[in-house]
Amino acid sequence: MVSNPAEANIVLSEVEFDVVGKRPIRPDGVDKVTGRAQYGADINLAGLLHGKVLRSPHAHARIKSIDTSKAEAHPGVRAVVTAKDLPFSSLSKDELGSDYMRLKFASNHVLAGDKVLFKGHPLAAVSANNPHVAEEAINLISVEYELLPPVLDVLDAMKDDAPLLHDDLHTASLGETSEKPSNVAAHLIYETGDTEKGFAAADVVVEREFRTAAVHQGYIEPHNGTAFWNVDGQLSVWTSTQGAFAVRSSVSDVLRLPVSKVKVTPMEIGGGFGGKITAYLDAIAALLSKKSGAPVKLVMSRTDVFEASGPAPATWMKVKVGATKDGKFTAVQANLAFEAGAYPGSPVMQGMLCAFGCYDVANGFLEGYDVVVNKPKTAAYRAPGSPQATFAVESVVDEVADQLGIDPIEIRLLNAAKEGTRRIEGPIANRIGLVECLEAARNHPHYKSSMGSSNRGRGVACGYWMNRSFPSSVSMTVNYDGIVSLIMGSVDIGGTRASIAQQAAETLGIAYEEIKPTVVDTDSIGYTFITGGSRTCFATGWAAIEAAEEVKSLMVARAARIWDTPEDNVEYASGVIQHKSDPELRMTFKELSRQLATTGGAITGSSNVEPTGEGNGYAVHLVDVETDLETGKTSIVRFTAIQDAGKAVHPSYVEGQMQGGAVQGIGWALNEEYFFNDKGQMMNSSFLDYRMPTSLDLPMIDTVIVEVANPGHPYGVRGVGEAAIVPPMAAIANAIKGSAGVRMNSLPMTPGKVLDAISGEGK
Amino acid sequence: MVSNPAEANIVLSEVEFDVVGKRPIRPDGVDKVTGRAQYGADINLAGLLHGKVLRSPHAHARIKSIDTSKAEAHPGVRAVVTAKDLPFSSLSKDELGSDYMRLKFASNHVLAGDKVLFKGHPLAAVSANNPHVAEEAINLISVEYELLPPVLDVLDAMKDDAPLLHDDLHTASLGETSEKPSNVAAHLIYETGDTEKGFAAADVVVEREFRTAAVHQGYIEPHNGTAFWNVDGQLSVWTSTQGAFAVRSSVSDVLRLPVSKVKVTPMEIGGGFGGKITAYLDAIAALLSKKSGAPVKLVMSRTDVFEASGPAPATWMKVKVGATKDGKFTAVQANLAFEAGAYPGSPVMQGMLCAFGCYDVANGFLEGYDVVVNKPKTAAYRAPGSPQATFAVESVVDEVADQLGIDPIEIRLLNAAKEGTRRIEGPIANRIGLVECLEAARNHPHYKSSMGSSNRGRGVACGYWMNRSFPSSVSMTVNYDGIVSLIMGSVDIGGTRASIAQQAAETLGIAYEEIKPTVVDTDSIGYTFITGGSRTCFATGWAAIEAAEEVKSLMVARAARIWDTPEDNVEYASGVIQHKSDPELRMTFKELSRQLATTGGAITGSSNVEPTGEGNGYAVHLVDVETDLETGKTSIVRFTAIQDAGKAVHPSYVEGQMQGGAVQGIGWALNEEYFFNDKGQMMNSSFLDYRMPTSLDLPMIDTVIVEVANPGHPYGVRGVGEAAIVPPMAAIANAIKGSAGVRMNSLPMTPGKVLDAISGEGK
Repeated sequence: MVSNPAEANIVLSEVEFDVVGKRPIRPDGVDKVTGRAQYGADINLAGLLHGKVLRSPHAHARIKSIDTSKAEAHPGVRAVVTAKDLPFSSLSKDELGSDYMRLKFASNHVLAGDKVLFKGHPLAAVSANNPHVAEEAINLISVEYELLPPVLDVLDAMKDDAPLLHDDLHTASLGETSEKPSNVAAHLIYETGDTEKGFAAADVVVEREFRTAAVHQGYIEPHNGTAFWNVDGQLSVWTSTQGAFAVRSSVSDVLRLPVSKVKVTPMEIGGGFGGKITAYLDAIAALLSKKSGAPVKLVMSRTDVFEASGPAPATWMKVKVGATKDGKFTAVQANLAFEAGAYPGSPVMQGMLCAFGCYDVANGFLEGYDVVVNKPKTAAYRAPGSPQATFAVESVVDEVADQLGIDPIEIRLLNAAKEGTRRIEGPIANRIGLVECLEAARNHPHYKSSMGSSNRGRGVACGYWMNRSFPSSVSMTVNYDGIVSLIMGSVDIGGTRASIAQQAAETLGIAYEEIKPTVVDTDSIGYTFITGGSRTCFATGWAAIEAAEEVKSLMVARAARIWDTPEDNVEYASGVIQHKSDPELRMTFKELSRQLATTGGAITGSSNVEPTGEGNGYAVHLVDVETDLETGKTSIVRFTAIQDAGKAVHPSYVEGQMQGGAVQGIGWALNEEYFFNDKGQMMNSSFLDYRMPTSLDLPMIDTVIVEVANPGHPYGVRGVGEAAIVPPMAAIANAIKGSAGVRMNSLPMTPGKVLDAISGEGK
Repeated sequence: MVSNPAEANIVLSEVEFDVVGKRPIRPDGVDKVTGRAQYGADINLAGLLHGKVLRSPHAHARIKSIDTSKAEAHPGVRAVVTAKDLPFSSLSKDELGSDYMRLKFASNHVLAGDKVLFKGHPLAAVSANNPHVAEEAINLISVEYELLPPVLDVLDAMKDDAPLLHDDLHTASLGETSEKPSNVAAHLIYETGDTEKGFAAADVVVEREFRTAAVHQGYIEPHNGTAFWNVDGQLSVWTSTQGAFAVRSSVSDVLRLPVSKVKVTPMEIGGGFGGKITAYLDAIAALLSKKSGAPVKLVMSRTDVFEASGPAPATWMKVKVGATKDGKFTAVQANLAFEAGAYPGSPVMQGMLCAFGCYDVANGFLEGYDVVVNKPKTAAYRAPGSPQATFAVESVVDEVADQLGIDPIEIRLLNAAKEGTRRIEGPIANRIGLVECLEAARNHPHYKSSMGSSNRGRGVACGYWMNRSFPSSVSMTVNYDGIVSLIMGSVDIGGTRASIAQQAAETLGIAYEEIKPTVVDTDSIGYTFITGGSRTCFATGWAAIEAAEEVKSLMVARAARIWDTPEDNVEYASGVIQHKSDPELRMTFKELSRQLATTGGAITGSSNVEPTGEGNGYAVHLVDVETDLETGKTSIVRFTAIQDAGKAVHPSYVEGQMQGGAVQGIGWALNEEYFFNDKGQMMNSSFLDYRMPTSLDLPMIDTVIVEVANPGHPYGVRGVGEAAIVPPMAAIANAIKGSAGVRMNSLPMTPGKVLDAISGEGK
């Protein structure tokens, strides 16, 4: 895909920058296009062993016994591990106290303990001299199961008589814990105003139920993990992850090691989208390494990735919106039940926070259920929780507009969240750009164009993601040739090196090419949260700015020493160091750099930040679809993605995020779903059967970057990765209403479901 | 060798430390004893090619032509390079200006240009899919030579009619440049007082000439270098070196790249002793990589190491000492001519500075000549220049004592340099520990013991090395478990990680085990000078102290924020952070570390330092030898090494340095020498023929660490690596005077030479 001309973008920030906002080449580009970049599977250490994981064929069963003796006896096998090798197996409930349940779930997720809870659940692992022997050996492990009925649907799982996944899981609800064990891990409520009164005051109330399927992030690179547990107790891990420090935390947690005993080197990452945060293989590789006395590498197959890494949850949702006849919302409500998978922790809370994130509502009620089922534990997937909730909310909002005969953009503008809007869960919005995005949509040629064919429909929807901060660390050192080496803890997804280098260069007043960024391991830099949550460009960028400010003051101090003048008589502006009282005395950054060697050595600035001031992200999507009324197949005819990036540090990469998010959303909308049989076995665990959109399925995704500077960041950065995946499902559903005359309430909107809806509506 | 009990050491520093001065286990120990440590030859990159270097069989010849066509045509060969591939070959004298000669020498040393100047001089190199093909291919390169007479001796080379190595080398002498080209690259003079008058006032004057042979550092690990020149112009180098930044400088210099285009990753190092500073292979590997489009590894054979890396120079020296009859020196003089090898740059200046470094002399004259000969370019070797000069000076001092009937320790004490002594070259000594070392020697049971057999003799000598500073950088980050990750640019030789971690821990008031040190690449840390010159424990230690001080103040600031009190109301002492006005409010380092995650993230302290305050190092050695008067063979019977370490940060490693230095000195004294035939071909280029002492040749080397704190360093550190190699040659020569009745004036003092001396003396 080629991004559309920058001229189409709408720049509302008033400051013009030298480097921020430009489109330089990414430092990691050459390595990636020439195949030189080192991914986790490329690791080849001296004496490297290969591991394989034995996975459960059943979705729900008690493990009666595991016999590994034949595998252990197999020549070429170096070690076999099971849950018994995890520290949890030898720790008592008393020892662990309040930490018991958390560690039990974390440990059992790595290697099943008493039960298997989803097909693909790891049971045991083998290390061997080569992967073929390892594969052979895992087939020699015999497991005796007591089969249990699988719980495969969120509503079924919530029933009183549902089989329980965990005998000891009780519902945490509004500060209380249920007496009876349950599959409902958590019950959450947020509310504001008086919803009952609000609905009573409405002229129109629409209430609908929705379902969405589990979907996978579909990153190209499967999970991998290589570990070497040295005899001195130091554990080294090389892995594909969105956060080296996150892997360090979870590996040290289940292995009961101090974090500093674990060094994680993040390899290049072939896609993550939230799914490369959980550490599936690393602790297993570590256990195998400890037993084998050698490094061990594990790599998932595609089927492993589908069955045993974390998809976005399937959900059941009910949404209710009341409005006056001029379109003003009087009350809103959403009841969300999200499948967590085998262990608690769906993004239902984020779904609740995002459901009405686009709206200024006085009366709102949000209820959420986090529910365990016999499916793989869900993971983050781009704006976790928001796409599902937004599919429901934006479908209902569209229907309200429909019923009231109001333009769908107008009704959204009428109710749009803006600076000062108080959210249902409490916080007040800072300066945000939803109104500007909606106006850009209304004014866009796409919205004004005629649709042509009669089987076509146009849909619009907006989407919200809060964007996050969390800690980041950056260190920068000035080389004697004036080039600044920058090390950071943020792994590079989609241009991190570039966007951080841009902010560093901007702050120093030097060229982008004069910053040399490197992603380093957990021993070489301060704690840095994951690359995700649309936080990296914001928070790690901030860290780079702070480190650059330290470099500037050290450069000033050095110049002052050289010129034998007080530091406050030297100023730094636009990459030039200037003596304030002698205009002749000035040095460019490069000139002073060349003098560092003989005046005290290099200069290093370091920073660790956890900035507040995150700026919320908003996207508005326009889509034209054509539905074949004979087959029910819907095609995307035209798609325009509009988004407030705050300041777009690297517009090409922002456009890439917008296009990628839209395409993933189109997949959720029309094709993608985990399809399980009644035994809980996924029946489409390959890219052949799990259908993701390809370029042949898609038109060009037009993008419009709206820049409403985030006042909480020096360059106005908000973060752009998440909001783009939020609107497509509702936008497409709303378009299908136009093209096929039916309102779809279940994802994906496959030809079959659309045909059913058409016939159900009597067409 | 087992080190002697610490009780024998003499501690004169008054401060007791918690971590500094203890003997913890080295962090890199396990990897090194289990074979896991990664050395340069262990590198295995995807698509790695192997290179071989074609070396000159002649010591002196003009290159008429090099025909590489057959090698290029060989299947499996990926690239062939010669000097034509170096940027120097296409730069004119005008373009380079004053830099011309320097770059010519540097480039020609990497790959011979118009002439070969020593046997082993690199001429061309080949990359191929495996080392065997590369080996085969270099034999297909045909070189036409015009043979020239080799110049193999320093005095011959200085003769007016000597064949010239370089037509364009002129002598730099006292600010002037000679008109006539010469093999003498430099002529240096330092003087103080009135030497003529001083000698006139002497009751006894001894003047002797000396010779020493070229000797090799003998590190176990041969030189290696792997390079990958990426298509984006970034060059990565992995190599065995004492200084990653030194390799970066020299590679970028001969390849005419900005330093930041080159990233050097220092691998573990299997010994250096000064010989692993020059980058012999890295630029060749880079050129081959550029031409091949793949990474290329080069590894030297042991013969390559002997013939083409840098030994310590052979020398000619004349030393004259005058003294009154009560032993006070009235004047001293040394004339030193050092072989530089094929290109200028012997350590003759350091030899001059060290010659009388042990003495307080009012009248002194030092003259030095740096002379090129057709031998490999010399390199640094442990206290470069000092062992040779000291052999001469300490032999003459001993003879003066002998003639005057004064005890050899007494005459040294009488003339010893001490705080306030003005050196011949100018500087005034700070607090130094030579007197304390001499007193320790005089009081040592060894000196008081009877020697037993009549063929035994006892010798004493002292030695001096100035110790150096230069820039160092350290960054430290506090993990949430209270462990501090420390990254540094100093490669680890002989315990660098440990000694730097100790100083960091001491400063922070935490345990040694709570510091996790890592040596990183040149992109990840600020410029750091080589590990050498006995600077690392001093200067990088200083950097660690400064970075730790920054960590302390950031920890105070964090605690102040947590306690909501001004920073100056919080103090940091012995690893505890204390609220000054509320004794209840206190946190250990670890307790506060655990709170970092929720109070703003990690804490990082960085420093770049170039401290002044180096403290000079002194050693005094006592040796008993037994000489077999039939064969001339001298055996070491007892050896005691005494040295002022300032503060011994890790006494075991200090003792290791003292023992290692003594053993290398014993090798210089008795066995080791480059033996050339008259064509300039080294005839003993293997460890079988180049005889280094083994444990079978040696008694236990007793050590006495004397601790006279260096007032110029926070913990009193001086540096200990160099001084230990300085005294042995003279001490053994002086002992041979006792055992065989002859004064030896040529190293090594082989059985043959000793027999010759005995017969020459008429015994």
